[in-house]
Parts: sequence; C-alpha cells; structure tokens
Amino acid sequence: MRPMTESEYVDFLRAGTRTAKLAVTLPSGRPTVTPVWFVWEDDGVLRFNTGIDTAKARSLAADPRVALVVDLEEPPYAFVRVEGEVRLVRDPPEVRRVATAIGGRYMGLDRAEEFGRRNGGDDELVVEVHPTKIVAITDVTG
Amino acid sequence: MRPMTESEYVDFLRAGTRTAKLAVTLPSGRPTVTPVWFVWEDDGVLRFNTGIDTAKARSLAADPRVALVVDLEEPPYAFVRVEGEVRLVRDPPEVRRVATAIGGRYMGLDRAEEFGRRNGGDDELVVEVHPTKIVAITDVTG
Repeated sequence: MRPMTESEYVDFLRAGTRTAKLAVTLPSGRPTVTPVWFVWEDDGVLRFNTGIDTAKARSLAADPRVALVVDLEEPPYAFVRVEGEVRLVRDPPEVRRVATAIGGRYMGLDRAEEFGRRNGGDDELVVEVHPTKIVAITDVTG
Repeated sequence: MRPMTESEYVDFLRAGTRTAKLAVTLPSGRPTVTPVWFVWEDDGVLRFNTGIDTAKARSLAADPRVALVVDLEEPPYAFVRVEGEVRLVRDPPEVRRVATAIGGRYMGLDRAEEFGRRNGGDDELVVEVHPTKIVAITDVTG
C-alpha cells in the first residue's frame, strides 16, 4: 500500500474512460452513489454535468458535501477518493464546454460535439467539485 | 438504456474482480465512498469484510443504511446499484468463510486460504447487505 503523488493521481483520474462514483447524502440522511462521467481539469477542479431538474441536483443544492471515488479493479488495485464541496454553475457556454469535453472522453472525439449539444442545453448544470481532501492509494494489497 | 433482468445483474455483480463502491453517511452527515471487495451470494445477500475497529464499522453500526454501485467503465456502460441495510456479523467461522471466498475472487484461488486467514481473524466482521432496492441499467448511452 503506497500513497500516490499528485501527478500520479491526476494521471489516474484522467486515464481512459474511468468513471467516478459520486456519493451524496439524500435529505432523508440515506446515502446514495452513482457513476458519473467527469473531467479533472488543470485548475484542480473535478467537473461533471447533471440536469437542473434531477434528484441529484436537488440533493447537491441542499447539501454541497460530496465524495467521489475512482478505482482500479484489478491488481495492483488502487483508488483515488476526492472529498469536497460542490458549486452548481448554470452558465450555458460553460455547460456546453464541459459537456463537450466529457463527450470526447467517454464517447470518443468524433462524438464530442454531438454529446456537447445533447448534454449542454439550458436545462443542464456543471457541477464543480472543489476538493477539500484527496486520498490516493496504489498497490492496495502490497 | 435498458434495465437488466435479475440473472443479468447477478452475473454482472459476479463478473471478474469488479469492486463495489460503498457509500455511507458519516455521523457528521457527510457522505463517503470506498471500494470494497465483495461476494454476491445465492441467498441474495451481498457480503464483505471489515475490521471491527474501523471508521467504516462504527459508521455502519450507527446507521445501517448503505448504497453500493458496481459499474462497467466502457461502452456499452452499465451499472448496478444496491440500496439496503446492513447487519454486522461477528461469528468467526462465517468471517473466515467470507474472507476466503473474497480472497479467491480478488487474489486468485491459490491465495484464497492465505487471504482468509489474514482477513478472517477475531478482529474482523462480515457486513451483510440486505437489499431493499436494486437498480440495474445497461446500454446507458443507447
């Protein structure tokens, strides 16, 4: 078990089509967890899109505290957990920018624009996760 | 986007070395999420091990509500989310049985016994997750 350096965990978060598993506390106090497509950007902010009128957006507006984990599901097993607080952004050009970047990552660059249009509309948000704590471990079993 | 049948989601949960991402609500109300090695057993209960004296065990004793998600991080993208309540089991033979099954799944059958000994001690628990709701979706982008 070994902590990753910052450059290692940034590379880890950005590798391929890894998804983040987003945990939020619902108003009832019950936890929930959902895979999200995301980008980790050079300003050290993790961003993803969600619809304005979704249970996820309402939960995040009520309680901005989140945790996300990205992991490697085979030896040497590794994970990065990001704890932070969210800021919800409604600016349409920014929503479209992030949706296009996410489309390129997960659907392929040839479909980035299409995805940006589909998920970059006026009824979408950018969720910015501003990290307060990052735990990044590799060689979990070593 | 298409719901999986029960037999599809059981196969999905059991495939390879997929990990579950366990979300719990901490006593502060903050969510957290951690990858866990698990087995989905024929009685429809998801089981994993944890140490008796861990933050995870204390959180679960204080609030038994959990959610876990297992996902496929490439096309066609898919996920299974299990919401449920946990029961903490201290019975040593059962702890050892589950630790050995988990060792076989994630470390390989040749290391299952070793892992069972290491993670099947008196200071370990079995966490049983009794599902109250399962959401299983495949072809997420279709």
